Amino acid sequence: MAHLLSTHCNITLSKTTKTNNFKNQNCFSAVTFQNPKPSHLTLKSHLKPHLKKPFTALATSTIGQDITSKTHENSNDQFLSPKNKKVMVIGGDGYCGWATALHLSKKGYEVAVVDSLVRRLFDHQLGLESLTPIVSIQNRIKRWKQLTGKTISLYVGDICDFEFLAESFKSFEPDAVVHFGEQRSAPYSMIDRSRAVFTQQNNVIGTLNVLFAIKEFREECHLVKLGTMGEYGTPNIDIEEGYITITHNGRTDTLPYPKQAGSFYHLSKVHDSHNIAFTCRAWGLRATDLNQGVVYGLRTDETEMHEELCNRFDYDGVFGTALNRFCVQAAVGHPLTVYGKGGQTRGYLDIRDTVQCVELAIANPANPGEFRVFNQFTEQFSVNDLAKLVTKAGEKLGLEVKAVSVPNPRVEAEEHYYNAKHTKLIELGLIPHLLSDSLLDSVLNFAIKYKDRVDTAQIMPSVSWKKIGVKPKTVSV
Amino acid sequence: MAHLLSTHCNITLSKTTKTNNFKNQNCFSAVTFQNPKPSHLTLKSHLKPHLKKPFTALATSTIGQDITSKTHENSNDQFLSPKNKKVMVIGGDGYCGWATALHLSKKGYEVAVVDSLVRRLFDHQLGLESLTPIVSIQNRIKRWKQLTGKTISLYVGDICDFEFLAESFKSFEPDAVVHFGEQRSAPYSMIDRSRAVFTQQNNVIGTLNVLFAIKEFREECHLVKLGTMGEYGTPNIDIEEGYITITHNGRTDTLPYPKQAGSFYHLSKVHDSHNIAFTCRAWGLRATDLNQGVVYGLRTDETEMHEELCNRFDYDGVFGTALNRFCVQAAVGHPLTVYGKGGQTRGYLDIRDTVQCVELAIANPANPGEFRVFNQFTEQFSVNDLAKLVTKAGEKLGLEVKAVSVPNPRVEAEEHYYNAKHTKLIELGLIPHLLSDSLLDSVLNFAIKYKDRVDTAQIMPSVSWKKIGVKPKTVSV
Repeated sequence: MAHLLSTHCNITLSKTTKTNNFKNQNCFSAVTFQNPKPSHLTLKSHLKPHLKKPFTALATSTIGQDITSKTHENSNDQFLSPKNKKVMVIGGDGYCGWATALHLSKKGYEVAVVDSLVRRLFDHQLGLESLTPIVSIQNRIKRWKQLTGKTISLYVGDICDFEFLAESFKSFEPDAVVHFGEQRSAPYSMIDRSRAVFTQQNNVIGTLNVLFAIKEFREECHLVKLGTMGEYGTPNIDIEEGYITITHNGRTDTLPYPKQAGSFYHLSKVHDSHNIAFTCRAWGLRATDLNQGVVYGLRTDETEMHEELCNRFDYDGVFGTALNRFCVQAAVGHPLTVYGKGGQTRGYLDIRDTVQCVELAIANPANPGEFRVFNQFTEQFSVNDLAKLVTKAGEKLGLEVKAVSVPNPRVEAEEHYYNAKHTKLIELGLIPHLLSDSLLDSVLNFAIKYKDRVDTAQIMPSVSWKKIGVKPKTVSV
Repeated sequence: MAHLLSTHCNITLSKTTKTNNFKNQNCFSAVTFQNPKPSHLTLKSHLKPHLKKPFTALATSTIGQDITSKTHENSNDQFLSPKNKKVMVIGGDGYCGWATALHLSKKGYEVAVVDSLVRRLFDHQLGLESLTPIVSIQNRIKRWKQLTGKTISLYVGDICDFEFLAESFKSFEPDAVVHFGEQRSAPYSMIDRSRAVFTQQNNVIGTLNVLFAIKEFREECHLVKLGTMGEYGTPNIDIEEGYITITHNGRTDTLPYPKQAGSFYHLSKVHDSHNIAFTCRAWGLRATDLNQGVVYGLRTDETEMHEELCNRFDYDGVFGTALNRFCVQAAVGHPLTVYGKGGQTRGYLDIRDTVQCVELAIANPANPGEFRVFNQFTEQFSVNDLAKLVTKAGEKLGLEVKAVSVPNPRVEAEEHYYNAKHTKLIELGLIPHLLSDSLLDSVLNFAIKYKDRVDTAQIMPSVSWKKIGVKPKTVSV
């Protein structure tokens, strides 16, 4: 895996991963690749770590209670208070990760971002760019500190490099780890053989390393792992939350829900789920697998505080997800690209609910030995439903929107039964932001605001599930 | 991954993987390691490849027919005849792989062994040795040629190196691939973090490469993949063959059987199963997953033809499986080591049935797009059952045998329901060799014959599921 390394700063670049004061956050300019034995660099905030007691198993008694963001702030129970918890956000520079890191920091958690920044490299390599301009992670964190007084620590490195991860764990001593740090695009994993292999190797080995780090250094640490609703595929029966009770030949057992993932990326999350479940059984680790639906939206309360806190927004055929992509298409007068028949139905959620769900999972940790699965979405839509909603919202804004069916680059059912349960996070206190016309207006307005930055050549799907080959694609897809 | 390279022979060592005539099979003596970018060497028989038509989809019409070894020889259907098929045996130097390669060669298939020989390296590194003396793969193949006139091609390299695998595919043009080429020990995968990671990376990426090679170079090629019964764990309902029909909330679907694997090794096979199933759906590949039980025994008709064809026989705490280990313990007067309560029940089969099952799977290939799962075992036993059988058989031979319970190094249920289906291979014509007193006598007699080679220090379990740590174990376990 490639690493972004600075050659200009007063930072530690040694293999022994010493932490160093972070004297000049705005000096990252040079990029080099180190292969095959990656080095890494570790940056840590200049603030001394607070002397806080580690989070203990007592907090598990809160399961089932209604712990919303509001109750956090008012809680008298020290074990419920964010003040007692250090949260490591792996992948904290990404779309969901950045919004989550800020939200948890705002709520009083002590936050560290762990990220190799390789997501930014993918954009460079594929010739893609976020619709919204985003600044460096170093400047993002600096701006956050300036606005709120809150410090977010930064560890830049690859979690597949266990030496780096171990030093990050020993240095930060997390009470919870939120793990977004995976290659997260299905089309990316289907570009060519090497990217398919990269996706599974990077995601599976990274997560194995996190599990070993928890076992070795922070046994009580709660792992909150981002899975995906795509792990389940589209079975012809209701989708439950992680487990299903089966009566068969007169006997009954509750077993992991069968998995039928539809890309090498989705499969990597299936592999993770099985590995994590095993370590909960064998080692007594505590983990929550958040099987997330498709995330849409741009703003959270924290990212809208300053333009330098702005989140990334992907609309391209590789990283852009359905609803976000449709809004950009509507804004620039491009037909909405419905893949195939458009009957593909999935769970969706607002990014403001992503950060809320992660917070709820952390505030209500799994028990030692428990592998808990929540389906993290708020509403189901078909692609055709989304196209209609965007068309309607666009018309209100004076846009002429039309939808076209394009050949489906994926291999998936285009008409199917879909009914997925999603009650566990609601039971913990999730108050959903539903997809309303006003929200669509807001996302659409962002798309309109930045429409001059749109590269229409990136909109159409360019990765075929069937045509993937063994030769590396060396130019933009 | 390390590679065994010769420095003395007339062989091709270049990165471009040219094949070369195999002029002197007995000259392999030097071993070097190439890291981190492995080279590989390709050896090919000096016999010119027969000009045979590739196997075609017509052969799928044989599914369900009773194709035993006997009917192969007498068949008039060219598509059923082994003479029309080239079979690549990945991992063909190992315990099951070597026996299978010889068996298929004997039956008239054109066979190529693909192996990195890393299994032999594991023995060196852990200070272990096969109970039986085994000669080099080069000499094994030479002896086979001398005895039978049949040629087995040899490709030495790592299937995780796609360049090597691609050249092997393009050179040999297999009609079927039997894939044994994985790290296959549960305890090995639980020694330390690096071996856990190695096991998953090696097995998952190797299999991904095989899938890509088939898609790119031999789309009609039938993949016969060795899975394990351990993928299912020990559910409290009957275990079906790969799939289970579930009725839930008034709807019904047939879904992949839920997986609950009990080690990083077993998990790697679960990951493989999901990956292979996806490529059958998305690309139309044809695959058979043989979820094999615990294999016992030493001799097959072919390996007993000459002492240089002798198979390996592992009795140590890392690679030795229950029944084989018990026989060696009985032979040397060591108490039979029953882990915990001994109620652990699994499926078992004779190695003569392993080779028969693989032959049946090849003769009756899966349809394009089909991911077929067979549970490959013949009888179920608990560990206590096995201890009793070995005690009884040992007494007949005048041995004093006793069993002791040792602390279970694994995390597993020691008393549980277990009822696994295994009818599909029987339907294809499998005639099982059941575990009889006479067979036990035979395995026991082998153990007695070689008892002076037993290192009793290797017998006890040395790898703990709970104590696995992040520091590499640098000496023998």
